[in-house]
Amino acid sequence: MSGVAWTKRAQAADPLATRLFDRYRDDLSLPAKWGEALDLILAHRSVRAYTADPLPAGTIELAVAAAQSAATSSNLQPWSVVAVEDPARKARLAALSGNQKQILHAPLFLLWIVDHHRLAQVGEQTGTPANALHYLESFLLGAVDTSLAAQNAVLALEAIGLGTCYIGGIRNKPAEVATELGLPPQSFALFGLTVGHPDPAAPASVKPRLPQEAVLFRERYGEAAAPRSLAAYDARLRSFQREQEMPERDWTEQASQRVRGPDSLAGRDVLRDVLHRLGFALK
Amino acid sequence: MSGVAWTKRAQAADPLATRLFDRYRDDLSLPAKWGEALDLILAHRSVRAYTADPLPAGTIELAVAAAQSAATSSNLQPWSVVAVEDPARKARLAALSGNQKQILHAPLFLLWIVDHHRLAQVGEQTGTPANALHYLESFLLGAVDTSLAAQNAVLALEAIGLGTCYIGGIRNKPAEVATELGLPPQSFALFGLTVGHPDPAAPASVKPRLPQEAVLFRERYGEAAAPRSLAAYDARLRSFQREQEMPERDWTEQASQRVRGPDSLAGRDVLRDVLHRLGFALK
Repeated sequence: MSGVAWTKRAQAADPLATRLFDRYRDDLSLPAKWGEALDLILAHRSVRAYTADPLPAGTIELAVAAAQSAATSSNLQPWSVVAVEDPARKARLAALSGNQKQILHAPLFLLWIVDHHRLAQVGEQTGTPANALHYLESFLLGAVDTSLAAQNAVLALEAIGLGTCYIGGIRNKPAEVATELGLPPQSFALFGLTVGHPDPAAPASVKPRLPQEAVLFRERYGEAAAPRSLAAYDARLRSFQREQEMPERDWTEQASQRVRGPDSLAGRDVLRDVLHRLGFALK
Repeated sequence: MSGVAWTKRAQAADPLATRLFDRYRDDLSLPAKWGEALDLILAHRSVRAYTADPLPAGTIELAVAAAQSAATSSNLQPWSVVAVEDPARKARLAALSGNQKQILHAPLFLLWIVDHHRLAQVGEQTGTPANALHYLESFLLGAVDTSLAAQNAVLALEAIGLGTCYIGGIRNKPAEVATELGLPPQSFALFGLTVGHPDPAAPASVKPRLPQEAVLFRERYGEAAAPRSLAAYDARLRSFQREQEMPERDWTEQASQRVRGPDSLAGRDVLRDVLHRLGFALK
């Protein structure tokens, strides 16, 4: 506990110490140059409650400019985004995504699309077959680049004071989502992102993560720290849950229930077959 | 060209206009609150030339703290990172990744690992089977969360003045990379990231991207703008190539050659089989 006490003392003078304590509940200390960008990155929390205020003009274009500023493999740019603001369409997409109410309340729902359709079109235009798109590697490359792009958008949106929440539930019913969005073959909604002004009446908190020794290895993968660090994390997450007046539950218990079997995948156990039907051969 | 002239005039007074011109070579204008974070995001370029200067103390821990601050589905945190600084190991990894010289010259090479091994261990600890990990959905979720995390790390590293370059070539030889890093079953090096001080003698430039109309759709996916916007992009990329004294080549030609078939995948056409051997059933 002395580490925690030390860190709490340090927080008044050092905003980085505050951010690191919120993230780890540990006495990790870093001698970094501090600034707005690091503060923004470390202060992230998912925001699920929004006010009814409209978004600033240009919000969508700024998010896309940030997204397009991320790296992309061989400059392929294999993604698109569909910006949904129509309440009726948002409601239909919410129904397809496990009825998460933040989709209804957010003024903007961004759908991040792995888009091989555009590359296939380019192949047609140049008379090249584009057969590499039929391999798992190309699908994976598309998912990686779409994710890098979306995370840049999240940070840009947070930089102008907005809050976001990723919606993986959009993969519960990929074929129905493709129909709703008019997606062409060889495109796939990888995840959604709700965007809005955070509701000050329902502030979100920074959730602690696994200790760094559980995820960071030097030179080669190691396991020595795992049992100790997982037990430490269970305890830290419980202290967060108590503060939030949430039911206390170990992370090890939550995580293992979430991955226990196909019944815990909310319908996504058929994803491979659905992707085949959407035009991804995944060879 | 009047749009370009307008934008060039606007750049002196408006740093956002400068960033947007560099990214699009168009007169896109956004009424956003400007700040350090947006500037950092929009100014990204991949850096492949580094000085010999050592990294600041705490660089790796800062990158990991930023990475762990990204969203993660159901708080599963399904990734790890291996930080490689040993020159001999970097050289071996470079040889497995298409001999990209930036791996040799960067003082740090981060390997971003989709890590289902830790979740499988948690399942053993709690007596839960962890069978959901054997589905394609779980692999995809791991790849998405690993990518969101890495992009946060990239921005944090850039915030302290460092430069980075993603290395997708690490997927050329996944089994050999797993052996080199001592990866356990159910883990996979998704991509690498070189990190170092940018060499001022070889400055990198912001590469223009597709016009927003090619990647951003409202309410439903649309295609009307595609041929016009792709032609506009070919022209803008050629103007960039001329400035950089690079050979001029249309994006449509580059991209279609990159996806033409399994021979353009640098060995990654066998990725599915290799993933099976690494413990990912991809059901």
